[in-house]
Amino acid sequence: MTRLDLTGDVVELTRTICDIPSVSGDEKALADAVETALRAYGHLEVLRDGDAVVARTNTGRGTRVVIAGHLDTVPIKDNLPVVVDGDIMRGRGTVDMKAGVAVALHLAATLSEPRHDVTYVFYDHEEVAARLNGLGRLVRNHPEWLAGDFAILGEPSDGTVEGGCQGTMRVKITVPGVAAHAARSWKGSNAIHSAGAVLDVLRAYVPRRPVVEGLEYHEGLNAVKIEGGIAGNVIPDLCTVHVNHRFAPDRDVAAAEAHLREVFAGFELEVVDAAPGARPGLEQPAAKEFVDLVGRPPAPKLGWTDVSRFAGLGIPAVNFGPGDPLLAHTDGEFVPIPEIRQALHVLTTWLS
Amino acid sequence: MTRLDLTGDVVELTRTICDIPSVSGDEKALADAVETALRAYGHLEVLRDGDAVVARTNTGRGTRVVIAGHLDTVPIKDNLPVVVDGDIMRGRGTVDMKAGVAVALHLAATLSEPRHDVTYVFYDHEEVAARLNGLGRLVRNHPEWLAGDFAILGEPSDGTVEGGCQGTMRVKITVPGVAAHAARSWKGSNAIHSAGAVLDVLRAYVPRRPVVEGLEYHEGLNAVKIEGGIAGNVIPDLCTVHVNHRFAPDRDVAAAEAHLREVFAGFELEVVDAAPGARPGLEQPAAKEFVDLVGRPPAPKLGWTDVSRFAGLGIPAVNFGPGDPLLAHTDGEFVPIPEIRQALHVLTTWLS
Repeated sequence: MTRLDLTGDVVELTRTICDIPSVSGDEKALADAVETALRAYGHLEVLRDGDAVVARTNTGRGTRVVIAGHLDTVPIKDNLPVVVDGDIMRGRGTVDMKAGVAVALHLAATLSEPRHDVTYVFYDHEEVAARLNGLGRLVRNHPEWLAGDFAILGEPSDGTVEGGCQGTMRVKITVPGVAAHAARSWKGSNAIHSAGAVLDVLRAYVPRRPVVEGLEYHEGLNAVKIEGGIAGNVIPDLCTVHVNHRFAPDRDVAAAEAHLREVFAGFELEVVDAAPGARPGLEQPAAKEFVDLVGRPPAPKLGWTDVSRFAGLGIPAVNFGPGDPLLAHTDGEFVPIPEIRQALHVLTTWLS
Repeated sequence: MTRLDLTGDVVELTRTICDIPSVSGDEKALADAVETALRAYGHLEVLRDGDAVVARTNTGRGTRVVIAGHLDTVPIKDNLPVVVDGDIMRGRGTVDMKAGVAVALHLAATLSEPRHDVTYVFYDHEEVAARLNGLGRLVRNHPEWLAGDFAILGEPSDGTVEGGCQGTMRVKITVPGVAAHAARSWKGSNAIHSAGAVLDVLRAYVPRRPVVEGLEYHEGLNAVKIEGGIAGNVIPDLCTVHVNHRFAPDRDVAAAEAHLREVFAGFELEVVDAAPGARPGLEQPAAKEFVDLVGRPPAPKLGWTDVSRFAGLGIPAVNFGPGDPLLAHTDGEFVPIPEIRQALHVLTTWLS
């Protein structure tokens, strides 16, 4: 097992944990190394569930913050071991999100008496189906391990605080028709043609850009799948349009559904799945303090992230981590080394 | 092998040949019975290619008509043996089209000196892929067997002469987009939304109803398939719409294609397949004489049928047979017995 030096250089630590492959489902080696390394520190209580490792201080502070990151990566594409090229560290996991994990590990080891009690959460299966998600499993199995007043998810955010996240909902719209032979099409009713009215709605839709707790979100309403037709000589009697709606965190799932039912009034609409967004939570005192220290205006998080799981527990949460989130999952992902050091600096200052 | 009595009651003959199953690909038993029965008549020259049987008189008349029908049926659905219920004969093949075949077999056996020389064509594989079609195979292998001045295809037409047929063309329209994550949809361009413009064209299209040689056709332009989208969180970069165009026989395939390129100007359009229509050919003297004898105004044939293969050989062709064409391929198909006798009567009168 690779021994991790948590108190040394955070950049070297980033490199070391990147070079322990941990594609989703194969996190055990890294989780073992993380657990072993954390157990060396007497100020930490270390817990484990599957390949999720939780470590926490118990100094009796009145407040507790959670710092979380996932250990897994998307599949390796000839991009390990990592390569350092000047100020850039390149390779699988560098930006998504082992630099963030390294920062948290370093904090855990070095801050024996933080200003807020801290719970560090390192979890598995973030890059795959939601039902496998390690943080979701902790929510189900040990919600008390995740208790806190404020949470920071170390996902890449270019060093900016990205508040909350947008919700997402998929609906299936079913447009009926009447089948007929294509040679006598007027005896039927073409469901694909009728689905044109659904596309009319989508083309005319102007998404909201609401400001929530000072952050401007940007919604979206898009067809992500359309299907219709059974044979080259048959007027189709069915066309389905799958629509994805991204909604700002001022609306919950029920409000988003009501909105879609209004937008698509007259159509048969079925909700396929939905995940709530999360409000930024930037009005929480610990959060305000943190944002002030970062010294840059916070930004809205548009994609859905695991901060929503904290929101579900009633814990305001933000994304804050080194690197450009748009590089996540790309074969050429990289992280700027100064951003790793800067993230560590900000968090250390905040918690000292 | 069932022995066929060609000169007895045409209704009994219909029942007998219906009860010899002959789903496409399995026509041999019926083709053998037909060939054997026809060879008993000295006034007929009998030819065979695969499971197609051709019989012809050679009396030296100046004119020759072709009477054709297919031996195969769509699959049996617990609807054999046939059941006679009053004036109705019900079961697989009754309307499509063994009643028409029985009429032709009876004519072949009984008319030793017809007023026009007659070529009777009984063929296989009509109900399946066009490349397997037995009449198409005869056109390729023995076009001289099909020579004639006028052809009658005994497909059900409710005893009306249905002239010519409409052509059919399928085109694929490809609408591009730009992929993006659904959380940031404005960074992409939704191909499904853009395909709405194709559906706009289809919804606004007013099909022609041109009169060709006195018959009013009715064209059609319909989406028969639409596909787009690859995942629930991705803005689709491709949507395809398959469109079927039915065109009247005053336009050939090239004219139909030019029309579609004009209608869908600005879209990427590819012709997937096409089959020409056939002009009614009712101005041909033998055809006129036949129509007068039927005593009802002729009607246009809207669907594509094998008359187009005769048209391709330069032989005007019509559909004329007992039963309702809309019952073809239904599990409850049936033929009214009086229509079988009436079709035989008209053809016998015409050819005597």
